[in-house]
Amino acid sequence: LIVSTYRLSEKSESLLNEFNLINGSDKKEDVSKATVLLGWPDSLRRNVQFAEHLEAIQTFSAGVDDLPFHQIPESVKIFSNAGAYSQSVSEHAIALILSLSKSVNRKDPPASYGVAGKTMAILGGGGIGSSVAKIARNGFGCRTIGISRSFQHPENFDEALPVEKLDYVLGSADIVVCALPLNKSTHNLLARNRLEKMRKKVVIVNVGRAEAINEEDIYSFLVGNPEARFGTDVFWRVNSAENFASKLWTLPNFAGTYHRAGAPASPEVKEEAVELAVINARNYLLHNGRVRNLVKRDDYV
Amino acid sequence: LIVSTYRLSEKSESLLNEFNLINGSDKKEDVSKATVLLGWPDSLRRNVQFAEHLEAIQTFSAGVDDLPFHQIPESVKIFSNAGAYSQSVSEHAIALILSLSKSVNRKDPPASYGVAGKTMAILGGGGIGSSVAKIARNGFGCRTIGISRSFQHPENFDEALPVEKLDYVLGSADIVVCALPLNKSTHNLLARNRLEKMRKKVVIVNVGRAEAINEEDIYSFLVGNPEARFGTDVFWRVNSAENFASKLWTLPNFAGTYHRAGAPASPEVKEEAVELAVINARNYLLHNGRVRNLVKRDDYV
Repeated sequence: LIVSTYRLSEKSESLLNEFNLINGSDKKEDVSKATVLLGWPDSLRRNVQFAEHLEAIQTFSAGVDDLPFHQIPESVKIFSNAGAYSQSVSEHAIALILSLSKSVNRKDPPASYGVAGKTMAILGGGGIGSSVAKIARNGFGCRTIGISRSFQHPENFDEALPVEKLDYVLGSADIVVCALPLNKSTHNLLARNRLEKMRKKVVIVNVGRAEAINEEDIYSFLVGNPEARFGTDVFWRVNSAENFASKLWTLPNFAGTYHRAGAPASPEVKEEAVELAVINARNYLLHNGRVRNLVKRDDYV
Repeated sequence: LIVSTYRLSEKSESLLNEFNLINGSDKKEDVSKATVLLGWPDSLRRNVQFAEHLEAIQTFSAGVDDLPFHQIPESVKIFSNAGAYSQSVSEHAIALILSLSKSVNRKDPPASYGVAGKTMAILGGGGIGSSVAKIARNGFGCRTIGISRSFQHPENFDEALPVEKLDYVLGSADIVVCALPLNKSTHNLLARNRLEKMRKKVVIVNVGRAEAINEEDIYSFLVGNPEARFGTDVFWRVNSAENFASKLWTLPNFAGTYHRAGAPASPEVKEEAVELAVINARNYLLHNGRVRNLVKRDDYV
């Protein structure tokens, strides 16, 4: 039995019509019988404890850092929806870079920064990072340096480097894009010591998870380095809810959006991403070998 | 005798060292002897009347709409600096498009618009228009349709069409970029009748001259069509000075910058553009056939 706690569209539902599906229920009696559970992290967090026969979880979100790993037996396979938002989020990253570089809507603007031919460090070589690299390289002739454990599209990177090279890369980048999932190894990855290695006129953008960057440290860094610029779509959580009221908004060298790069970007982006998750769950159920995005629990627990 | 009313850098000056040059003077006695006059439009407007032996004018600006054509004898050749700001201005156009599409810094943001694969109409096929097309096509996979009398890089356009096709093109575009010089035929080109032909969710951006769009008409259009979005770097002139205090700023579906796309973008952009103008003047003086950007007076007078 498949249970989706989120109401699937007719099209998505039809992709699962050879299986037994309960569509759009988070009733305890339905969830308790599920072998495969589909949902957004907040709903999964509330319901996963009741699923006594669970074999697999498929999230609609790209990130799984909000899942209650301690309530999920180790035998349960968890599949994320990584890659489903790549185009939307990568365009969003470029929007923040350009908005900051050209001081859009900013009175008394400082000098603009050119983008063409600049060196861009991209932290995260998954779908989003690879798509950012593609736009930057093909559109603006940037030199793209990726930092990742695994690259989805290494051909978009002029250099594809392992995480050990991070400090070296940060010091040589004009633009730094953070497109990392949040897990044990990425939490506070960009803290004071690494920010201080960056170039004076660096443009930093975060479209992954806020907590990969230390909030106090980036704030101090921007105050102390007025020529550096920072933009983010993601904000630091307080009691598991994103707190958009950051003091960063008071700084002239900051630009932000309210976590709108992915699913909340538009109904079309959300629907397409849900479909991709459903197709992945279907591939899992069909045992056809095309299932993707198996989460490594060790990264989170 | 060459007179530059603007003080050239050492490097630019050295490009003219085989000629007789007065560098950085707008004294009447110097200007009056000039056979070739180099300068920005505002300075040329004040000084050109004193140049009694003038053969040629080279502007540092791309646009020449501010020149006092009625004071310049027809025998005087006028060279613009078209193309010198192409990279900076085209990046700026993309910045405005993305900033609007993703509602950067906008509270209570509406749905984001995707850019990938969209149809972009580009009015003006010169250096700026061609460079916008290149970024949009190579970076975002947009379908690029240019409207121009002559295309500098037709290879960047999926379709390169004459001005007569304008109405047809505007109706099929998701994004409209205006990169036109201001002259008799472009003044008020986008007025109510053409704006009303556009798509409901059109994103319009102007990096040419404000007066190619009718200010009252675009204002009414944006009020009446909240899903349409407009961004501009250029503002309508009042007594020949750009008036940045437009009521457009009060609209949520507007984004702006304070005429910063070209020379004021940064000292580097300005210096590079001045060098290109000096090289062009040098080519004119050397009669080597590589002189560019001869202005057609008929377009303006």
